[in-house]
Amino acid sequence: MNLYEQEFIIRPIGFIKRDEEGFFLHFDNKVIPALKQLEHFSHIHVFWWADKHDNDQSRGILDCTPPYGENPPITGVFATRAEYRPNPIAVTVAKIEEIDHKKGIVKIQNIDAFDNTPIIDIKAYFPVCDKVESAKMPDWIVGWPESFPDEGFGLYEG
Amino acid sequence: MNLYEQEFIIRPIGFIKRDEEGFFLHFDNKVIPALKQLEHFSHIHVFWWADKHDNDQSRGILDCTPPYGENPPITGVFATRAEYRPNPIAVTVAKIEEIDHKKGIVKIQNIDAFDNTPIIDIKAYFPVCDKVESAKMPDWIVGWPESFPDEGFGLYEG
Repeated sequence: MNLYEQEFIIRPIGFIKRDEEGFFLHFDNKVIPALKQLEHFSHIHVFWWADKHDNDQSRGILDCTPPYGENPPITGVFATRAEYRPNPIAVTVAKIEEIDHKKGIVKIQNIDAFDNTPIIDIKAYFPVCDKVESAKMPDWIVGWPESFPDEGFGLYEG
Repeated sequence: MNLYEQEFIIRPIGFIKRDEEGFFLHFDNKVIPALKQLEHFSHIHVFWWADKHDNDQSRGILDCTPPYGENPPITGVFATRAEYRPNPIAVTVAKIEEIDHKKGIVKIQNIDAFDNTPIIDIKAYFPVCDKVESAKMPDWIVGWPESFPDEGFGLYEG
């Protein structure tokens, strides 16, 4: 058996909702118990499925010229956060604003995903796993903040 | 259509190898171009498929009593890093030691996944996305390092 022919199944556990009141994670009623105690963390990783790139063309893109930095070289997609990649998994850190455990809704500060994007996992942000003090980036990425911005990450449509 | 009946397909892009020489990510030859420029980052997120928990039983576990902390409460799996969860996606930050672009092998410092675990994505660690200065955890988690340890994360089988 060719190990690369294996297929693993992901199912949505919720959907991202954006409206004039803010940014919300709406969860399947079935997974609501998985949110217990989440309100004691300030931040989460939201894993979402980049559904607009779940097609052979996007999944076949392996490198790109990043739209940021100074004279960026051709860069493999694993060295970027591009949504087009072999498995279109995206992850965004978000600050928790409020959790409604009855309805299964988590209000977050911001997120860079479109309305109705499928959520595939949530993990609390643990500094011991996730906060690397000494992480280095390439020289062609200059002038970026050295840590997560206070306002979080949103969509900047221009 | 019930949106929760959608299924998304993930395919392995490589496999984790552990031996007496260390910890290695072996990539499918087809995705080697996606590694370009990765050597200019110090750390990556390794996304792996917790294949031992890809079964209905493990995927149905929604809460647990964490094996750490002081008198931990019953905790939803989204508030933990447990490998059993509705979609068994795991992610570990790892320090890059060496990249062989010809063979498609990345040597990393450490990882908490078993030999032959499928790799499903790699993302360079960008402090602006990933390093949250102010992240808070629950009171019952005490005495943990406030950031990623110098030696990385490994398997501690006991």
